[in-house]
Amino acid sequence: MGTTARAVPHTTSRAAVLDAVRAAGTISRAGLVRATGFTGATISTVVRRLIDDGLVLETGRAESTGGKPRVLLRLDRNARYAVGVHLDPLGTTCVLTDLTGAVVSRMTSAGTGAEDAAAVVERTAHQIDVLVEGAGIDRDRVLGAGLVSATHGSPTREPVLRYWADYPIGAELRERTGLPVVLGNDATAAALGEYWSGAVGGSSAFAAVYMGTGVGAGLLLDGIPYSGSSGNAGEIGHVCVDVDGPPCWCGARGCVEAIAGPAAVVALARDDAALARAAGLAQGADGPPPSVAAGFAAVVRAARRGEPTARALLDRSARRLAVAVRGLANVMDLDLLVLTGASLSVAGPVYLPAIRRELDQAFFARGTHGVEVRMSTSAETAPAIGAATLVLQSQLVPLRGGPRWPDDLSEAVPAHA
Amino acid sequence: MGTTARAVPHTTSRAAVLDAVRAAGTISRAGLVRATGFTGATISTVVRRLIDDGLVLETGRAESTGGKPRVLLRLDRNARYAVGVHLDPLGTTCVLTDLTGAVVSRMTSAGTGAEDAAAVVERTAHQIDVLVEGAGIDRDRVLGAGLVSATHGSPTREPVLRYWADYPIGAELRERTGLPVVLGNDATAAALGEYWSGAVGGSSAFAAVYMGTGVGAGLLLDGIPYSGSSGNAGEIGHVCVDVDGPPCWCGARGCVEAIAGPAAVVALARDDAALARAAGLAQGADGPPPSVAAGFAAVVRAARRGEPTARALLDRSARRLAVAVRGLANVMDLDLLVLTGASLSVAGPVYLPAIRRELDQAFFARGTHGVEVRMSTSAETAPAIGAATLVLQSQLVPLRGGPRWPDDLSEAVPAHA
Repeated sequence: MGTTARAVPHTTSRAAVLDAVRAAGTISRAGLVRATGFTGATISTVVRRLIDDGLVLETGRAESTGGKPRVLLRLDRNARYAVGVHLDPLGTTCVLTDLTGAVVSRMTSAGTGAEDAAAVVERTAHQIDVLVEGAGIDRDRVLGAGLVSATHGSPTREPVLRYWADYPIGAELRERTGLPVVLGNDATAAALGEYWSGAVGGSSAFAAVYMGTGVGAGLLLDGIPYSGSSGNAGEIGHVCVDVDGPPCWCGARGCVEAIAGPAAVVALARDDAALARAAGLAQGADGPPPSVAAGFAAVVRAARRGEPTARALLDRSARRLAVAVRGLANVMDLDLLVLTGASLSVAGPVYLPAIRRELDQAFFARGTHGVEVRMSTSAETAPAIGAATLVLQSQLVPLRGGPRWPDDLSEAVPAHA
Repeated sequence: MGTTARAVPHTTSRAAVLDAVRAAGTISRAGLVRATGFTGATISTVVRRLIDDGLVLETGRAESTGGKPRVLLRLDRNARYAVGVHLDPLGTTCVLTDLTGAVVSRMTSAGTGAEDAAAVVERTAHQIDVLVEGAGIDRDRVLGAGLVSATHGSPTREPVLRYWADYPIGAELRERTGLPVVLGNDATAAALGEYWSGAVGGSSAFAAVYMGTGVGAGLLLDGIPYSGSSGNAGEIGHVCVDVDGPPCWCGARGCVEAIAGPAAVVALARDDAALARAAGLAQGADGPPPSVAAGFAAVVRAARRGEPTARALLDRSARRLAVAVRGLANVMDLDLLVLTGASLSVAGPVYLPAIRRELDQAFFARGTHGVEVRMSTSAETAPAIGAATLVLQSQLVPLRGGPRWPDDLSEAVPAHA
């Protein structure tokens, strides 16, 4: 059992060494032996191949500490690039990153709300062309494109994106760009983006709680994404906080997303005629009602203006989300949480203290350690950066067993394909 | 970050190779290269040392497939032994296992309900002496003793074992036996015991849901225990299924353990005078009321006899536990669940179908894959076997980053010490 599941033969040591070089910035071969646990002979062989492939450079010598000065290695950050695309009803973000995950250039555009999927692919492909050409980069050096959304990775989809369900977006984007395309989930990509941006530090059990239109979480254990047996881990939006609660689109009852997610908040706000009018949620002379996330942002603005009903709705939602987040923290024994996604970003002043309070009062292992909770400082770009690192990590990061990220990106298939 | 967290230098390759040999039964050096991803040179060096240490034997040659026949390796199962102890209010189980985790001998005795902790240590130490001497084993070959209970590993303790909170049971048992002692959580040990007993197969995301006196879960990801940032992962008993529910001893509200655990079922049964009498739960001429788990078993027997109130109480509990288990399955994207612990063992016919039904109807990734759910076939011994493997795995199983299992078992310290 363990024999086949544990390692991806041959690529394991290469990926581990590359990731150790990336994490360290600069490091000697002896440092790599210490960091990876591989023998000196293995490190020597792997490093020679990485240098031959142009991924790693010798970059000078460490200061002598008595013995012979050691040659330092670093990634050649411009050796390879990756594209990351975050499709969201609120806006599309497209980034080009270097081999270290640093953003070389970026582009944002309108959301994917009511658009035809083919039009989104066409526009995205054009943006990729512009980014790569604008950066003056040889297209052969672009490893591929990662594309993340709330749709991809979830076999059961949020209603807002369900009309895309059967559209082969990965194949179409690959066809149009000539790049290998890997698809992923926005919450996991957000967690990865936080990690590659340096916001996660030494956390051993980290979650990015993501609230945009729906509610989800991305999980990183020891810096490695945990995606579960089928790429669907982290579905915190569909944990029950009220066993007799209302039905959710996922088939369960009392899910925190159904009770306290942005759509639920907006629906409750619409039920209050005065609030709906004040927040501009009513369908009226000004055109169609706003999207879920835009409506949620309007409720947040109303609360900020002092509307007590709006504030009460948000407090109620925050308390319920906090309870679900505590359950996640208890089950995973988390040490760090970052709150992200458009809806949490806009409503942080309400949700952050509610989640902190819940964990302070009732996190199971609080006698041993606390859970640090903070707002993302890169909420707008983290999912796109994470999408690019989905591409990079197939080269860089040791894979946790199982065929989740193919070596050949062209084989990357979303769970629902 | 990744550089210090990922690997335990030097012991990583040794542990990975030992685990690959264990998992395979017999395997060639070339097979180890494929299984672990290490180079042939690393495998050769590590195997030579393992043979020198007497842990691995050359055991003949594989049949020729055209080329040169290959030497097969296997563990010398009698090279080392480990003791595993499961302390529970319902009964103490003590096992001696060989290097493969197979039980050499076993002993059971009364539970730890009302006993003095020092007396439990004294009796446990005596049992260990009898097991080791009875098996005719050189004590120097016993690597150590693993001791698991609902208490150890949890900084916040279940009330039933709270009087042991400050008793240094690990140090006392070490003092009395001369063996290194490692402490752990019963649910994690149960999951490990299932894995080492071969019940987990190729599952990549496995949980043992454990209901004895309380409710917990042990998690194995790709065969490696997931214990979280402080050894407290898997606390499924303290996820909320009713945000406005009654307070739990852990500090939260509406925890599934507080609403639907064995103590809650027994308390509700006592409120029904007829059921309490029928199930023998009332305090009366027959002596003190039974322990929580014994009282729960009495309710189960009453349901089996056809008492409708008893059956209704169990159905209600099972439905709530099923909802919490579904939340765990959604967050972890599980592919296999085993139900274990004394209370689930006795009430399997009620809880197993309820949990299966909930997952069939509402598991988030059900469009991609199902979650297999079954009863443990070794519920009585799995936690003790898992306790022994806590000792073995510090030698055998690659550690997931962080200082959870010390190389030097004498440093093993429970979270609350």
